[in-house]
Amino acid sequence: MRVAVFGFGSLNYYLNKLNVRERLGGEPPYGGSAMALEFAKAGYNVTLADPHLSKVPQEILEKLESAGVKLTENDTEAAEGSEVAILFTPFRSGITFKVAETILPHLKEGAVICTTCTMSVLVLHSYLQGAVLTEGREDVGFSTMHPAAIPGTPQHQHYLIATNELLRNPIVTDEQVEKLKELAEKSGKKAYLLPAELVSPVGDMGIVTTAIAFTGALEYYRVARDVLKTKRSMTEFQVAQALQVIASLVAKYGFGGLIKLLNVDAMKDSLKSMVLDKEGQPMTIKASELLEKLDEIAPELLEEAEKFEPSEPMYLSAPSPMLVEYMEDLIGDEALKGILRETWKKFYSGVSERQ
Amino acid sequence: MRVAVFGFGSLNYYLNKLNVRERLGGEPPYGGSAMALEFAKAGYNVTLADPHLSKVPQEILEKLESAGVKLTENDTEAAEGSEVAILFTPFRSGITFKVAETILPHLKEGAVICTTCTMSVLVLHSYLQGAVLTEGREDVGFSTMHPAAIPGTPQHQHYLIATNELLRNPIVTDEQVEKLKELAEKSGKKAYLLPAELVSPVGDMGIVTTAIAFTGALEYYRVARDVLKTKRSMTEFQVAQALQVIASLVAKYGFGGLIKLLNVDAMKDSLKSMVLDKEGQPMTIKASELLEKLDEIAPELLEEAEKFEPSEPMYLSAPSPMLVEYMEDLIGDEALKGILRETWKKFYSGVSERQ
Repeated sequence: MRVAVFGFGSLNYYLNKLNVRERLGGEPPYGGSAMALEFAKAGYNVTLADPHLSKVPQEILEKLESAGVKLTENDTEAAEGSEVAILFTPFRSGITFKVAETILPHLKEGAVICTTCTMSVLVLHSYLQGAVLTEGREDVGFSTMHPAAIPGTPQHQHYLIATNELLRNPIVTDEQVEKLKELAEKSGKKAYLLPAELVSPVGDMGIVTTAIAFTGALEYYRVARDVLKTKRSMTEFQVAQALQVIASLVAKYGFGGLIKLLNVDAMKDSLKSMVLDKEGQPMTIKASELLEKLDEIAPELLEEAEKFEPSEPMYLSAPSPMLVEYMEDLIGDEALKGILRETWKKFYSGVSERQ
Repeated sequence: MRVAVFGFGSLNYYLNKLNVRERLGGEPPYGGSAMALEFAKAGYNVTLADPHLSKVPQEILEKLESAGVKLTENDTEAAEGSEVAILFTPFRSGITFKVAETILPHLKEGAVICTTCTMSVLVLHSYLQGAVLTEGREDVGFSTMHPAAIPGTPQHQHYLIATNELLRNPIVTDEQVEKLKELAEKSGKKAYLLPAELVSPVGDMGIVTTAIAFTGALEYYRVARDVLKTKRSMTEFQVAQALQVIASLVAKYGFGGLIKLLNVDAMKDSLKSMVLDKEGQPMTIKASELLEKLDEIAPELLEEAEKFEPSEPMYLSAPSPMLVEYMEDLIGDEALKGILRETWKKFYSGVSERQ
C-alpha cells in the first residue's frame, strides 16, 4: 500500500523553540517525517513530500532514505496512486487546503485523506466539497491519523482515527478506517477510534484544557453526589452551563474579556464555600491557589482585562446543541450544515483577528 | 426601605444533609432566613415569608423576631409595599415562578425582584414577561442578591448583583442596582456587580467547575506562551473548542456519554506529551493523576459509560455565540429571544429527564 505524508515537520520549531529532545526525548526527525519513517519501517511504500527538503540536514534525509522513504518536493508526485494521504502541513489553513486540492485528483481509487494536529478533518472535509464534486472523487474518504503527541518522541504511542460516529453524513468508510487502524498498529502504535469532532479536543495541545475541565467536572460531580447531595440533573446542568459560558466568553471576547467579565475576586470568594471535602477536591484546591496568583501567571492578561470593554452584547449561556436543533427545525439540515461551516470559520477567524 | 425575603432555607438540608455547622461553621438559621436576619440587623424593615414556618424550632423564630424580622406564611403580605423582593425559594422552578407571579402586583412602585442561588434571573425575567404586561408592572426590575455562599456561614461575605452589562435589553435600572448594592454593603458584605448571565456560573455551586476550567485555561495559556510558543489566537481557539465540546457532550448526553465519547485512555495518552513544565502545570498534573483513578472517583459513571449509546448525532463543537449571531440574522432579535428561552428550557428539562 502506498502512503504519502505531506509536511516534514519544522526541525527549527521542534529542536530550537520547543527543545523537544531535552523536554520529551527522542531523536530527529520529528513530526510528519517521523511518521513517514515508522510507516516505512513497518513495510509500507512511503513518500514524504515537502517543498523545503533542501533545508533539511543531509544526515536526516539519509536516515529517511535508508529506511526506504521516498523524498520529493512535489506534492502531486507523492500523491500519485497513494491510498493514504496524511497532511502534516503547517497550521495556517490556507496551505493545507491548497495541498489537499492539489493531491485529490491523483490519489488512488478509494483513498483516504487524513489530517493530523494541524487541521480539523471536518473543516477540511467541508472546504473540499467543491473539489470533490468537480473532480468526481466521492470515493475519497476523510479521517485523521492524529498522533496526539509529537511523532519521534517516546510519548508518541498512538493515533487517533476519526470515525463517522455522531455525524449525520459519513465522511469515511469502514474499510478506510480499517486501513488506517492497520497502518497505525503495524507501525507499533495503539489506534483509538474517535468521533470526528472529538479528535481535536482530545489530540491537540488543547488536551490540557480538555483534561482539566473533564476531571474538574467529575470532581464536582463527586462533591455534589457525596456532600451536597444535589440531584444529578442539577450537577450536569451546572457543569454544562459553566463550560458553555467560559467557551463563549473566550470565543467572543478572548482571555482579557474572560478575566474581566468573570470577575476573579468574586470567583475567589464564591469558591471559599465550595471546598467541602479536601481529600476529594484536589483540583478545586489547586484552582483556588492559582486564582490567588494570576498576577504571576499572566500579568499581561490582567492588564488587558483592566482595559477590556465588551464590543457588543451577547447571549453567553445559550447551549449550543439545543441551538443547533432549533436551527435545523427552522432551516433544514442542508442549510444548517452551511451555517455551521460559516460559524466555525467565523469562530476561527474572529479569534485570529483579535491578535 | 421594606425588604421581603421569600424562603426560609431548609434547616434539614443544611444541618442534617450538608452538615454545614461542622463543615463550614456558623449558627442556624442558614439561607434566606439568615439573609433576612442580617438585613434587619442593618436597620432594614424586613419580612420573611415561608409557608412552613410552623416547622421551624421556636428558638430560631425568636432569634429572627428579636432582631426585628417580621414572619409570615403569606407571600402577598410580605410583598405588600416592598422595594426589594428576594427569592430564596426552592430549586424546582415551578415554585419560584408561582411566588414571583403572586407577589408582582403587590410590590412598591420601582421595586426590584432578586433571585439567589436557586433560579437564574434571566429565566425568571423571561418567564414573568406575560405577568409584567398584564399587571402593567414594567417598573419592576430584575436582578440578583446571590449570596455565592450559604448565608449564615462565615464564608458568606458578599453578594453578586446582576447588571445589564452584555444584555441587549435592560432588566434593571441603575437606581435599582444601587439600592441592592447599598443593601449588601450596609449588611457588612461586599457587593460584586456582574453581567446577569455570569451570576450563576460564578455564584452557584458549579463555581467548582467554573474555577477549575478557568484556571485550567490560563494554565494552558501559560504553557502555550512560554513553552509551545504558539499563537495566542490558536490557544484561545483550542480553549474555546475544548470547553464547547465538553459542555455540549454533557448537555446532550450526560456524564456517561461524556466519558464514553471522549475516551479516557486516549486522553491519558495524549496528555503525556503535554506535561512540559512541571512547575507551571499543577492542574495538568492533577488532571493526569485523576484520569488514572476514575474508577475510584465515579465507578457508577464508568459503568454507565460502558453501556452508553448516543441517541442521535450532534454537532458538538458549533460555537454558541456565532450560532446566535447567525440566528439573529435569520430571524431577528425578537424571535431569537423566544428561541433562546426555549433552548434554555430544553437544556434544563432535557438534562432533568435523563435522570
